[in-house]
Amino acid sequence: MIFSINRNVLLDNLLVIQRGLPNKTPLPILNAIKFVVNEDHLILTASNSDLAIELTIEDKSLRVKQTGKAAIPGRFLIEIIRKLEATMIEFAVVEEKSVVIKAERSDFKLNLPDVLDYPEVDFLDLKQPLVLDSEIIKTIIKETNYAAANTEKRPILTGVNFLHENNQLYITATDSYRLSKKEIKLRDNLDPFNFVIPRKSLEELSKILDLVSDNVEIYVNPNKVLFKFPNIMFQTRLLEGKYPDTSRIVPTNFPVIIPFNKEELLAAVERVSLLSPRDRDTNYNIIKLTLRSDHVVEISSTNPEVGDALEEITPNGRVVGSSLQIAFSSRYLIEALKSFASSDITISFAGEVRPFVLNGPLDIDLLHLILPVRID
Amino acid sequence: MIFSINRNVLLDNLLVIQRGLPNKTPLPILNAIKFVVNEDHLILTASNSDLAIELTIEDKSLRVKQTGKAAIPGRFLIEIIRKLEATMIEFAVVEEKSVVIKAERSDFKLNLPDVLDYPEVDFLDLKQPLVLDSEIIKTIIKETNYAAANTEKRPILTGVNFLHENNQLYITATDSYRLSKKEIKLRDNLDPFNFVIPRKSLEELSKILDLVSDNVEIYVNPNKVLFKFPNIMFQTRLLEGKYPDTSRIVPTNFPVIIPFNKEELLAAVERVSLLSPRDRDTNYNIIKLTLRSDHVVEISSTNPEVGDALEEITPNGRVVGSSLQIAFSSRYLIEALKSFASSDITISFAGEVRPFVLNGPLDIDLLHLILPVRID
Repeated sequence: MIFSINRNVLLDNLLVIQRGLPNKTPLPILNAIKFVVNEDHLILTASNSDLAIELTIEDKSLRVKQTGKAAIPGRFLIEIIRKLEATMIEFAVVEEKSVVIKAERSDFKLNLPDVLDYPEVDFLDLKQPLVLDSEIIKTIIKETNYAAANTEKRPILTGVNFLHENNQLYITATDSYRLSKKEIKLRDNLDPFNFVIPRKSLEELSKILDLVSDNVEIYVNPNKVLFKFPNIMFQTRLLEGKYPDTSRIVPTNFPVIIPFNKEELLAAVERVSLLSPRDRDTNYNIIKLTLRSDHVVEISSTNPEVGDALEEITPNGRVVGSSLQIAFSSRYLIEALKSFASSDITISFAGEVRPFVLNGPLDIDLLHLILPVRID
Repeated sequence: MIFSINRNVLLDNLLVIQRGLPNKTPLPILNAIKFVVNEDHLILTASNSDLAIELTIEDKSLRVKQTGKAAIPGRFLIEIIRKLEATMIEFAVVEEKSVVIKAERSDFKLNLPDVLDYPEVDFLDLKQPLVLDSEIIKTIIKETNYAAANTEKRPILTGVNFLHENNQLYITATDSYRLSKKEIKLRDNLDPFNFVIPRKSLEELSKILDLVSDNVEIYVNPNKVLFKFPNIMFQTRLLEGKYPDTSRIVPTNFPVIIPFNKEELLAAVERVSLLSPRDRDTNYNIIKLTLRSDHVVEISSTNPEVGDALEEITPNGRVVGSSLQIAFSSRYLIEALKSFASSDITISFAGEVRPFVLNGPLDIDLLHLILPVRID
């Protein structure tokens, strides 16, 4: 295996493939990136217990002197390529035991594990893909992923549910205190599906989507889902178990509806939560929202140990309803507001102890719901 | 105590005074910043077991309705002022138990400890100050402070030594593996002094010097040193004990002298240390420098577990001496190179097991010395 390639091209591809390296693994060979060098292209593979990535590099700078394959220690390789300033980098495997990496006056030799020990990755290749634009997938992840659970108390909630029926795709994430739900109309006639992707896999996919934009084909089987870009295959395991039916917890009747400027509300909530006391269950700061009879909104917090904070906001349009007082974790509202692209936000309240719902005119078919906490 | 002041002016001053807040303290009142409001100026004080800062604010935006004093919880105050977007901020103490902070539609109330519990800080006010430009103090700290010890094995080495005799000021820092020494000619006729400032205090002073530039008067007594700016007093305790005499460890005879381009050497050392093994004592990466008989320099490392790295560098000018091989912690060389302003660096070697010395033409009177490690 002997080849040379442009340093920037290689680095860009390594930054994608690194999302598939494990943080910790009982199988040390997985710390390597598998290189398969063919006559006119390279295939790179990285995998861990959650996901696998395969990437094809076809570039005019690629010169292959000898085909072959090797498993090269991933993080060392990436650090070396990152620090090199040369234009071209040459790789040459010596007796299958080490690889020599040369660039101008730099010369690195890395010990290699046996590439035959690298486990085969079976990528799905089924019919009937679901095709989505990479920007839409990025938006879906931004709008929903943060609402999935961080803790393993109910493992199924650490993932995001993708449910397809009647040409509608529903994407749902909840940690049981708040819920984010997105709806997308599909044009293709696909079989129904219902699966849950681990939150962490979507985080890695989102980082790849920052670097790549294209159409993405999505293939599903009962255990795995494959996101197929023109040169990248990103495959993740699915979470086992039944995702809870969340359709009935969204209220339908809202006696109070308040429109806000998003940035103004966000700034006020962030200031007030500086002093607010913490909720026992979630450890998040609790704040209070009060609609006064003069239709001015107060955001406030009271912390016996530290002090009080009070912000006044004039709603951004016509208010429905008269008065209301409701308390909730400020962090849930802050994260929800940040996930909306719209600069105007409407909050609809079903009552002082019932969930409230956020909508934004630019965030079509996105619904965010937050459960209040009881206050005395 | 009632006053109002421009938000940006107050925040700029809080960013200086916060350097004096303790990280942890057995005396909770020290978490507060003491405000003394006079008719036309404010005096702010913060202090901890190492240092004390007093700051005077005279600004045309200041409007004092009622003089007085208060101890205001420091970190809460700074976070609130940072998050407020208003132009003017009003402070009003209510019954000496709380302070109300108002800005446009924001309204904060902070509980106050009793200001009478705030300990008096005695600032030195002696004759005969040493006067230095703030840029020079900043340079001194940048060039020496990093070389002081991080661990408490020999407490005196966690500080930086300032020694004055015969109108020469010598500033020395060492962790016993490397040493940084600066020499400054003084114009004033001052009494000799010899004291050691804690490394951490100099770090805080350096952060204040990023925000302030002016002449600084330095006052010394056996236990404390005071840096006096026009509006800021920064006082730190000194370390007790005798600083070791380092004058005899600097070699005087150098059979090998090699000039380098600093950036080129730094890049090569950083790449090579990616693979280098760790030293048992310091836990830093060990690399090797070899002067070949053709006067090309090799920087290299050998790590049986991972692999080898080798960089070639052509010296930046005339080389003195024939050949040499020496090993040392790459981090010591990296930190030393970064502290030099010069783009050209000369390294003078006294032998393969003797300390070597760095000099730079732009870094007048700065000497940096590194101890090699033995290799087999």
